[in-house]
Amino acid sequence: MTEKAPARLAMNQATVPRWTTPELIEGCARAGYAAVGLWRDRVAETGTEKVARIAGETGMQVSTLCRGGWFCATGPDDRARRMDDNRRAVDEAAVLGAATLVLVCGPATNKDLEQARTEVTDAIMVLAEYAAGGNVRLAIEPLHPLYCGDRSVVVTLKQALEIGRSAEPPVGVVLDSYHLWWDPSLEPTLPEAAGRVESVQLADWLAPPPDHLNGRGMLGQGSIDLRRFVRLVDELTGYRGPIEVEIFNPDVWAIDPPVTLQLVADAYETHVA
Amino acid sequence: MTEKAPARLAMNQATVPRWTTPELIEGCARAGYAAVGLWRDRVAETGTEKVARIAGETGMQVSTLCRGGWFCATGPDDRARRMDDNRRAVDEAAVLGAATLVLVCGPATNKDLEQARTEVTDAIMVLAEYAAGGNVRLAIEPLHPLYCGDRSVVVTLKQALEIGRSAEPPVGVVLDSYHLWWDPSLEPTLPEAAGRVESVQLADWLAPPPDHLNGRGMLGQGSIDLRRFVRLVDELTGYRGPIEVEIFNPDVWAIDPPVTLQLVADAYETHVA
Repeated sequence: MTEKAPARLAMNQATVPRWTTPELIEGCARAGYAAVGLWRDRVAETGTEKVARIAGETGMQVSTLCRGGWFCATGPDDRARRMDDNRRAVDEAAVLGAATLVLVCGPATNKDLEQARTEVTDAIMVLAEYAAGGNVRLAIEPLHPLYCGDRSVVVTLKQALEIGRSAEPPVGVVLDSYHLWWDPSLEPTLPEAAGRVESVQLADWLAPPPDHLNGRGMLGQGSIDLRRFVRLVDELTGYRGPIEVEIFNPDVWAIDPPVTLQLVADAYETHVA
Repeated sequence: MTEKAPARLAMNQATVPRWTTPELIEGCARAGYAAVGLWRDRVAETGTEKVARIAGETGMQVSTLCRGGWFCATGPDDRARRMDDNRRAVDEAAVLGAATLVLVCGPATNKDLEQARTEVTDAIMVLAEYAAGGNVRLAIEPLHPLYCGDRSVVVTLKQALEIGRSAEPPVGVVLDSYHLWWDPSLEPTLPEAAGRVESVQLADWLAPPPDHLNGRGMLGQGSIDLRRFVRLVDELTGYRGPIEVEIFNPDVWAIDPPVTLQLVADAYETHVA
């Protein structure tokens, strides 16, 4: 239980929600994790400035801030409110020194997916300019098509790259094994992501998934060849940053957080590294 | 309750499982449905020859027989057993005069999706030759990526078309709204499906899905623009055959089958035709 975590391994806050954000940062620092991925609502409980100070004191990198996005609006007021919230997310990412702000791009407000995808693109073009002013990098996270109805109209890497290219500066992508593993065009598309990968996240796919949102699997317990996934990302995109583990699953949440950190490090060594 | 169903409307047996196969055929004939999609296990309860006779007597077309496939094997014996079962499925489709035999192509037996996809392609090449001898048409059904772990390694139309082209004669596809609606490459890929569409099926996408397998929605109750889906299929592929409604959902199953037939006909008129 005292060995250090593998070099690139990072922990997303959603995997160990029982910890406060300071506990997470300090726990991950002790365990030798390379970075932490944070969530805005959890950061807010402590305060953004205070979290930034603790991260600085422990030398812990913030690999991602989750999340901006949710752009599709029911009207002009709703659209303005959503863009304001995204600007606040950018500001928080800047204070935290987060490597990237993750964008969840949906859901549509009606049955017109094409219109929703245009709306997402338009919003990202506006937000990209604001983020550039604050030196914050944005990353579109294509979600599994499972979430096309309730979360994200961006459901493939190819689509995320195309939307990201519309912005100035271009917006990058998050590559999450859970969301992308099924895609037969993943490998041929990855070279187009070279220089655009802002974050890599891992969870395994349990078959069948025990829950719509909270059914992700511990590394090695599901269907995904995670070693191949990370190897392809490394080889085809040149990404060398943190590999963040994000597992939404009540069985994982029930474990004592320091034990989870050790389990994840062991599973990473066995199934990924 | 006495109006005739719209001209192309067909009913899949999975939508009204409380009926026996003879009851289904006779009920759909009375309601003016164009065709029925049948399932092998349900047909077996009555006997294939007897079902074929009843279909002939009522003039009811069998639009699909579900299903062959499940090709991926743990070894040579398992592979031979699975191919035997597929040959029997072809024979049954021939006896029933089914327009097509639907193939579910997976799941993988391990984490190697590429190998599983090759295995599927190889099996379909063999089965296509056998099916041609019996004048039975095969159709690969790309399933929603939600099922990549437990049902099908074929998860996009593009992929199904590519695999189908490997066979001689080429194997067609089933286009099911539930499985394909999320795909940003659906519209650009549909023209490649011209002349290859063996069946069109409809169910709506409930967001979030209430169940992994049995959470499909009545037409109009979910996220899919079904009218656009059918219009795109018609315009881009030239398909003119039956539109089959297949809804796995206990709420639908609880309805008296004749009422379901009327509800589906009404929903089709309102949301599709």
